[in-house]
Amino acid sequence: MKILVINPNTTRSMTEKIGAAARAVAAAGTIVDAVNPSQGPASIEGPYDEAFCLPGLLECLLQGAGAGYDGFVVACFDDPGLAACRSAVAAPVVGICEAAMHVASLIAGSFSVVTTLPRAVPVIEELALRYGMERRLRRVRAADIPVLALEEPGSAAAATVQAEVERAVREDGCDAVILGCAGMADLTTRLTAATGVPVLDGVAAAIKLVEGLVGLGLGSSKVGGYAWPIAKAYAGTLAGFAPAPRG
Amino acid sequence: MKILVINPNTTRSMTEKIGAAARAVAAAGTIVDAVNPSQGPASIEGPYDEAFCLPGLLECLLQGAGAGYDGFVVACFDDPGLAACRSAVAAPVVGICEAAMHVASLIAGSFSVVTTLPRAVPVIEELALRYGMERRLRRVRAADIPVLALEEPGSAAAATVQAEVERAVREDGCDAVILGCAGMADLTTRLTAATGVPVLDGVAAAIKLVEGLVGLGLGSSKVGGYAWPIAKAYAGTLAGFAPAPRG
Amino acid sequence: MKILVINPNTTRSMTEKIGAAARAVAAAGTIVDAVNPSQGPASIEGPYDEAFCLPGLLECLLQGAGAGYDGFVVACFDDPGLAACRSAVAAPVVGICEAAMHVASLIAGSFSVVTTLPRAVPVIEELALRYGMERRLRRVRAADIPVLALEEPGSAAAATVQAEVERAVREDGCDAVILGCAGMADLTTRLTAATGVPVLDGVAAAIKLVEGLVGLGLGSSKVGGYAWPIAKAYAGTLAGFAPAPRG
Amino acid sequence: MKILVINPNTTRSMTEKIGAAARAVAAAGTIVDAVNPSQGPASIEGPYDEAFCLPGLLECLLQGAGAGYDGFVVACFDDPGLAACRSAVAAPVVGICEAAMHVASLIAGSFSVVTTLPRAVPVIEELALRYGMERRLRRVRAADIPVLALEEPGSAAAATVQAEVERAVREDGCDAVILGCAGMADLTTRLTAATGVPVLDGVAAAIKLVEGLVGLGLGSSKVGGYAWPIAKAYAGTLAGFAPAPRG
Amino acid sequence: MKILVINPNTTRSMTEKIGAAARAVAAAGTIVDAVNPSQGPASIEGPYDEAFCLPGLLECLLQGAGAGYDGFVVACFDDPGLAACRSAVAAPVVGICEAAMHVASLIAGSFSVVTTLPRAVPVIEELALRYGMERRLRRVRAADIPVLALEEPGSAAAATVQAEVERAVREDGCDAVILGCAGMADLTTRLTAATGVPVLDGVAAAIKLVEGLVGLGLGSSKVGGYAWPIAKAYAGTLAGFAPAPRG
Amino acid sequence: MKILVINPNTTRSMTEKIGAAARAVAAAGTIVDAVNPSQGPASIEGPYDEAFCLPGLLECLLQGAGAGYDGFVVACFDDPGLAACRSAVAAPVVGICEAAMHVASLIAGSFSVVTTLPRAVPVIEELALRYGMERRLRRVRAADIPVLALEEPGSAAAATVQAEVERAVREDGCDAVILGCAGMADLTTRLTAATGVPVLDGVAAAIKLVEGLVGLGLGSSKVGGYAWPIAKAYAGTLAGFAPAPRG
Repeated sequence: MKILVINPNTTRSMTEKIGAAARAVAAAGTIVDAVNPSQGPASIEGPYDEAFCLPGLLECLLQGAGAGYDGFVVACFDDPGLAACRSAVAAPVVGICEAAMHVASLIAGSFSVVTTLPRAVPVIEELALRYGMERRLRRVRAADIPVLALEEPGSAAAATVQAEVERAVREDGCDAVILGCAGMADLTTRLTAATGVPVLDGVAAAIKLVEGLVGLGLGSSKVGGYAWPIAKAYAGTLAGFAPAPRG
Repeated sequence: MKILVINPNTTRSMTEKIGAAARAVAAAGTIVDAVNPSQGPASIEGPYDEAFCLPGLLECLLQGAGAGYDGFVVACFDDPGLAACRSAVAAPVVGICEAAMHVASLIAGSFSVVTTLPRAVPVIEELALRYGMERRLRRVRAADIPVLALEEPGSAAAATVQAEVERAVREDGCDAVILGCAGMADLTTRLTAATGVPVLDGVAAAIKLVEGLVGLGLGSSKVGGYAWPIAKAYAGTLAGFAPAPRG
Repeated sequence: MKILVINPNTTRSMTEKIGAAARAVAAAGTIVDAVNPSQGPASIEGPYDEAFCLPGLLECLLQGAGAGYDGFVVACFDDPGLAACRSAVAAPVVGICEAAMHVASLIAGSFSVVTTLPRAVPVIEELALRYGMERRLRRVRAADIPVLALEEPGSAAAATVQAEVERAVREDGCDAVILGCAGMADLTTRLTAATGVPVLDGVAAAIKLVEGLVGLGLGSSKVGGYAWPIAKAYAGTLAGFAPAPRG
Repeated sequence: MKILVINPNTTRSMTEKIGAAARAVAAAGTIVDAVNPSQGPASIEGPYDEAFCLPGLLECLLQGAGAGYDGFVVACFDDPGLAACRSAVAAPVVGICEAAMHVASLIAGSFSVVTTLPRAVPVIEELALRYGMERRLRRVRAADIPVLALEEPGSAAAATVQAEVERAVREDGCDAVILGCAGMADLTTRLTAATGVPVLDGVAAAIKLVEGLVGLGLGSSKVGGYAWPIAKAYAGTLAGFAPAPRG
Repeated sequence: MKILVINPNTTRSMTEKIGAAARAVAAAGTIVDAVNPSQGPASIEGPYDEAFCLPGLLECLLQGAGAGYDGFVVACFDDPGLAACRSAVAAPVVGICEAAMHVASLIAGSFSVVTTLPRAVPVIEELALRYGMERRLRRVRAADIPVLALEEPGSAAAATVQAEVERAVREDGCDAVILGCAGMADLTTRLTAATGVPVLDGVAAAIKLVEGLVGLGLGSSKVGGYAWPIAKAYAGTLAGFAPAPRG
Repeated sequence: MKILVINPNTTRSMTEKIGAAARAVAAAGTIVDAVNPSQGPASIEGPYDEAFCLPGLLECLLQGAGAGYDGFVVACFDDPGLAACRSAVAAPVVGICEAAMHVASLIAGSFSVVTTLPRAVPVIEELALRYGMERRLRRVRAADIPVLALEEPGSAAAATVQAEVERAVREDGCDAVILGCAGMADLTTRLTAATGVPVLDGVAAAIKLVEGLVGLGLGSSKVGGYAWPIAKAYAGTLAGFAPAPRG
């Protein structure tokens, strides 16, 4: 089985960290590749960046589908473009926020999320509602660090995240904590040990869910909201993305 | 007051119809211009098209902000990129689905939506949930016509829409009907007369809400989810959209 | 266009303040009159007062309809009698709580409300639920001042409200603040400046929504919950309010 | 124990039927009196009538409190003025819609409501939401008969109600049916026998709940939304209802 | 009327306290007996204990049905096995958590619950959701005492509960407090006096609801989820519980 | 990795079918064993049977934990005793209803469930609410066949299920269908082919989720509702299940 993990921002070091986190949990027979687009934002911090990561994300996805990957992970905690991705390919596509929330709900009655910036809080709250996790979600907390601070060696970012995770455990009455940024994927083991509650990362969770879906022979339903795009013209620089007629 | 109505698809005839519908309800002192992007999909039918309309939509928006428009309408019933638009400019931005739903809730206890294609149904249901309108929404109905069929002179599309609106009134127990596509903006008067219940179009509703917001001196809150984009590099063909440092 | 703003309590000074706030945002061609009943409570502080403001409110409304007003605002933040008003006239009727909440939802992901007395908190929470705004509403806060304290020149009431608004911004994670009493309508500009987040008043918001509805040619749907009252006898002192046969 | 059942409309024959239904289930030591106001609508069919029943309803209530009744039932299925009533007296006050829904939820997983007119449907749906019963409520059905048709000897109204109850059992997947009008209180036994599912009436249910509350020594909490009205002036014909200072 | 109160744990002293609380509020003609199983856990602290109380609970129930009791109370605040009990007998069965919540909702707009151990918090939150009380429930608080500490003469448990109830009143904005353990049934009078808000116990509330249901001639609907068990074989030590064929 | 699948009823042929369905999707390195209790009901049809399957289910679980299984599947679509199981062991435990719903939500915007008996409908609706899937769930349909009919060679049960699945696809507007009984686990491939929408079985889904959880090193959080049972005495025949003191 071959899974493609797409980091929808263009920061190579983050892609590598995400790839390592994914490979660390992949099953024996699973090949994991991690890529990022060549166009778009260096980090995704809010809905404006999210809008501009989509062409690059979908380009990676379509190339991956052409190269025969069996499943895909969208590795940004805002779960950008999930419905578009699901409509564009036959293989399963899983976002890391939804993955973390679904997995957390199997082992814990409630959870909090610790993310990077305050502006991500409403995005994650809305995702929780979309996924039916609004009653499980105790609180979304922002550690108040830029996304790329997590990439700087020697920065205090990891310690800041840990402090916020510990506050969540102390104050929120939550049974688990989800790390709300793909760039935190390397912190789960340390934080689980430090807090005594399960601390989950969405990249790892998404790999296991995609492995599961592939194992079950399941891809996105082509009835309803994830139906194949309808063939039509796209104008201008995006013309290459225009959906072709099917069959 | 100058309002820019942005049709996020590239079909010029639809932009003109939308512009006419907007001008038909605009107040005496309001100038309404209607534009569409030069790049992107010819129609927006599902989440894949929606993803690819965003660069063009935001380009129109940023140009409009530069040209001094006081407020903006995003004239596609999927309300694409609303949060991104609100974060990108200081002026108010209103989507036509949210406009129609909020306005309907002021005059009717419940409503149904009649849209084009079945694949739009889950999109609109999710928007209703996001806007808190899930209990008002009796049902989303698809007339099962392509978006651009509404642009073809002499097509049966308008009659098909009317038949579905009449079914909604008969079967759904709804007190109003919302037309779920910007391309239906010219049908409200006829359908209100035909059914005896208020039939609403989102383009007209959005114009009045933007006029109201401008009159109140309100733009999107820059605290929280619509905060200004953070300055950073965008790679590749999207580099021109990279947020500049502020202040 | 002529809009009648009805203050459902009998305190004349408050009516004048409300009228001024309404006229301050009305469009060029809009005439705004503000009235209050000659019977009923001097202020509306809780459901008992609310029950007794209704005959006077409806009397003002019916007189206004007879005098040809194009739309109506009910200017008490408990939105008393809204459904009764909508059923009684053909013109649109908007309450100031619903107006503020709908407008706030167009510019902010979330909001808190600052009202007068603790007993108003459950009333406003229930209205938020009715309007589908329960997920946007971070918290209803009571400044713990009587409604009419806002009418006393030189009182500390405005400062107390400001302190509570500042607490809301600091503690609630809200992106906007709504002032939850018609008597606070003169404070928005100062408080927006003081806090840096949009501070909204329902009177102004309602004027713009009524202007919009009138501009769209919309009144309450006469199908469903706002259908015309059925002709019947009313006994005793209320006999004059008995619905007449229609047509 | 003395319970006062208040029919908030002015139709004496309906008051008598309600009183009989109440007495039929009252415990050995319970005295039940049934009254109706001398002012207000002859029947309550929609929010306009509901607004005008409130002064008469509260007058009956306050007289009853003066006469030493231990508890009160508001016997109109719209549950008019419940919060006002609870704030006005120390004794418990129960509405017949809430009574029927709470009682039904103790014996059935779900229920439908059969009421009189279509315009009552949204009222009852909103009450269900307020009471937390929106997930139990399968459907509100209107038999499409005027309230007072139930008072006419030899009318077809009862048969029409029965037909609708039978449709509810067949089509709604409900485990119980609630009769949604005080004027149907005499039909439960016959309809339970006819359908094989429990058919509940709110008048009887409310009597038992008030008996229970009195037996528990409970009245409305005077903290929060049901706090005593604040002393103030009421102008005009309603002056006699002005809350007096307490203690 | 004969009501059987079943304490589903095996601690006799607690059964006696529960019986006394039940008899203290029972109507003149009501005979109340309180029993507990001879098998199962000494206290119910979490879902594991809850699973193992069910055979004993159902044994008591079936014996009670055989002995002609008219109604049943399940006297553990986790409301264990309620649906099973309702399906097993024709008479009404009420749990003490649901009883307390429904009764509280008739006299208070909101309530908090004070229970024993933190692990009971999610159980009670889920019950509130099931009963539609999630919006009334301000907070579930754990006094952090073992269930049986309430049975030890001279223990500090009652004082600890009182302190937590007082915190609830001060901090939660609740209008009433529910004691979330059958073992607290003797504390309501003292705590109501101490706090000035209604403090409710589920045992007493359940007695009055069962009296009401019996008085109304209502038992669980045998259509839907509480239908009679289907006859079948039960293997092993549970064989005696196998449902017999009906009629 | 060793996974134990527990069929909580005592019907051996069903256990074998479930085991085969589980092994059919298990990963290369996963050993799957399927067991059923020696005590309890032959099938689980409603809450009464569910109560009596718990001792046997927990006995199997505890034996499995003793035997070193890495994870557990509870293979009844009512998800009986899930919280009790999670509190009783350190390894992950997944129910087949929750598994099917979470997996379906990753590939489809909405789903219907086809189960056996009408009495299972409210059970599954309540599970959907508990799991946050109430908005995804279009409808629960009962094929109206006894659970064990699916075990009879040559019965019409499979055809009846297929007909109901086809009705769901035609009438419910769902994008996927979940088979709501462990005894239907062998039908997915055929029904997916017959309908063109994904048809899911919970046994297979649960296996993949447990594999995922084990691969992530995750078990139930021991903070909150799944904390270890507290040591105490259990009386009578259940004494052997009494929780021992830990560490």
